[in-house]
Amino acid sequence: MAERVVRIGMLGCGTVGSAVARTLHEHADDIARRAGVRLAIARVAVRDLGRERDVPLARDAFTTDGVAIVDDPEIDVVLELLGGLEPARTLALRALSAGKPVVSGNKELLAHAGGELEDTAHASGVDLAYEAAVAGGIPLIRPLRESLAGDRVTRMLGIVNGTTNYILTQMSEHGWGFDQALAEAQRLGYAEADPSADVEGFDAAAKCAILASIAFDARVTIDDVFREGITGITSADIADAARLGYVMKLLAIAELDDGDVSVRVHPAMVPSAHPLASVRDAYNAVFIEADKAGRLMFYGRGAGGDPTGTSVIGDLIRVGRHLVYGGRMQSGEGGTAERRIRPIAEAHGQYYLNLHVEDRPGVLAEIAEVFGRNGVSIERVWQEGAGEEASLVFITHRANEGGFQATLRELRERSSVRAVVSLLRVEGDE
Amino acid sequence: MAERVVRIGMLGCGTVGSAVARTLHEHADDIARRAGVRLAIARVAVRDLGRERDVPLARDAFTTDGVAIVDDPEIDVVLELLGGLEPARTLALRALSAGKPVVSGNKELLAHAGGELEDTAHASGVDLAYEAAVAGGIPLIRPLRESLAGDRVTRMLGIVNGTTNYILTQMSEHGWGFDQALAEAQRLGYAEADPSADVEGFDAAAKCAILASIAFDARVTIDDVFREGITGITSADIADAARLGYVMKLLAIAELDDGDVSVRVHPAMVPSAHPLASVRDAYNAVFIEADKAGRLMFYGRGAGGDPTGTSVIGDLIRVGRHLVYGGRMQSGEGGTAERRIRPIAEAHGQYYLNLHVEDRPGVLAEIAEVFGRNGVSIERVWQEGAGEEASLVFITHRANEGGFQATLRELRERSSVRAVVSLLRVEGDE
Repeated sequence: MAERVVRIGMLGCGTVGSAVARTLHEHADDIARRAGVRLAIARVAVRDLGRERDVPLARDAFTTDGVAIVDDPEIDVVLELLGGLEPARTLALRALSAGKPVVSGNKELLAHAGGELEDTAHASGVDLAYEAAVAGGIPLIRPLRESLAGDRVTRMLGIVNGTTNYILTQMSEHGWGFDQALAEAQRLGYAEADPSADVEGFDAAAKCAILASIAFDARVTIDDVFREGITGITSADIADAARLGYVMKLLAIAELDDGDVSVRVHPAMVPSAHPLASVRDAYNAVFIEADKAGRLMFYGRGAGGDPTGTSVIGDLIRVGRHLVYGGRMQSGEGGTAERRIRPIAEAHGQYYLNLHVEDRPGVLAEIAEVFGRNGVSIERVWQEGAGEEASLVFITHRANEGGFQATLRELRERSSVRAVVSLLRVEGDE
Repeated sequence: MAERVVRIGMLGCGTVGSAVARTLHEHADDIARRAGVRLAIARVAVRDLGRERDVPLARDAFTTDGVAIVDDPEIDVVLELLGGLEPARTLALRALSAGKPVVSGNKELLAHAGGELEDTAHASGVDLAYEAAVAGGIPLIRPLRESLAGDRVTRMLGIVNGTTNYILTQMSEHGWGFDQALAEAQRLGYAEADPSADVEGFDAAAKCAILASIAFDARVTIDDVFREGITGITSADIADAARLGYVMKLLAIAELDDGDVSVRVHPAMVPSAHPLASVRDAYNAVFIEADKAGRLMFYGRGAGGDPTGTSVIGDLIRVGRHLVYGGRMQSGEGGTAERRIRPIAEAHGQYYLNLHVEDRPGVLAEIAEVFGRNGVSIERVWQEGAGEEASLVFITHRANEGGFQATLRELRERSSVRAVVSLLRVEGDE
């Protein structure tokens, strides 16, 4: 078969877009040989035509008019790398409605409007691919959707934000506080000047929604995801965790619980022998439990132009091949499963609680009674310090979040409990 | 589109085949909904018709005649799970030549005759899929071939044999000798009565050949792979490694070295902070270095009916979808790359060498001179013990294997070197 050129219209030309353009240029022959299609970026929409860009593309390929690219009959595939909801959503829907496949690396778009995009792609019978939207350079969506299509994923624990993992790793390995680790992350370019999207867990929540939607064939948006960031984590928390054999990680968690979906992002103590515990610095990893396949983990670079660009190009090849050789992506032919999103109060978790208490006989019994009455069973408890410094430290069994929160409310009102020193969640224990 | 049934002819019905049959039965509706195809095992070839099997298939689906299944016009896809080279090779080639897609989980077949099968599949324009042939339940071949198609893999380090990883983990965590750990592995069913395919590295070598062929677009067979098993590893070796911050693993290594392919299987000391170091027990993992994607790792169950069956079903869905919706797998449209297989003497490695030596001034200088003259540079050296018990322990920089072997030959002839206590390779250091 004669080699067929697939013409790409790229929306946005930032870090990832530039990396894609450079790699397609550099590896053009390799890709054509391996994939049987030649990928060419034909047009690029940018906001500022005047800006200098280090990309091997002709000046006249650039325009400020995204709609013109989407509508151009010469463009075979739209590559959306704008970030943010609009105009990405409008442009992607316009392309899909017109029967033009879309590759996107935009997590905000997919986490807010994934269902709408999937429906439109399905109705038009064209591909929508977004491997780059979650965990940058790690092949994750394709294995999850396709390799595991004959299995049932029951649980995912993901380190999907490199910035927070870098911060927590530094806190853990150097004993730094959060502010010092954040400053270092900002100095190295791992964190933005305004770090809230990362440290407050918004970025991880978007990825959690996308992963849960795929793993459970459900419609989950970022608004469904319970979210708690890492700004409250202290070096004392991390030291406590280490002493008990745990490492602190910001986890995106998606579980099936009696057929319902439970999705949440929060810091958690992970046992140090767990595969996720060894994921250091800005690396990402997603740990998956499935009925038949058992435990799987995918590890790699979660961000960066080149790694993320690799995922984009993998998708472009896939979509391009379908244009040339026929076929289409596996997604949603049979519709999604009807799944309820379980409110956080109905979720189940394991908890670490450090209470500053009165040091007198009977206090443990009094506190233990509160746990028991709220249905929270205690796995371990021990006293630390004495007198004015006395603490009781609890690790619970897996319990209902609502029951645990009720326990906590009651304990805060007891005079024997002077303060809640720290409350952490535990994930990944057997 | 009306749901289309894809009729599978299965060759062999052992652990994996039975798991596939049970899962297809159990998850039939889920798979049909997600994948848009219904997979049905229509016929099964077995050696012994009389044997009782716990599979949800009608008695009259079974036959002893594999050729009849391959030739049956009602069969859409041939699933080859026979193991071994023949008759698997003849039957798979017959199916492919007749334009019938083949899914295989047979590593011996692919490691010996992968090129022949790929060529036949390509000539007939049909799919050949074998995700289950390497690292059982881990999606690996599909991400490697497709998600990374726009990148260049430069190196792979794989723990691809669960039996040896279980044995080495037990030796490391309990201080056991090889024999004791092997006996325990046999008792638990992780090792065969004749364990040589695992402990001598044949199984890992087959997988190494398959992975290298895919990662480097090359034709690598098991006979190209340098192989050294774990039977010579002592508890002292493992203790030495641990003391120096390393963990012992049997690695399958595939590298691009100046455009040549280097493939080898041998035990290696891996730094304990390396992601592969935390892969315990019978788990498998493959660590990949690529130009653009950087470092990736895929972790999971490398064997077992259900995990391996998941990979088989992922392939069946893929192949079935192509029959129903069009398209075909990405493999070899542009032919393979011309790559030389580099002999082991030309490979590069890092070495740990413990020499029992005469304890007198000048010995280190004498020995260091031999290293230097053979082009092997020393990273660290230290003395252990004294007098009759004196050892010199060396860790080299990355060096040419031929140069290192020449060093070793010379050292064995020196009167100052009483014995080579141990020689180990190091992999995964920065």
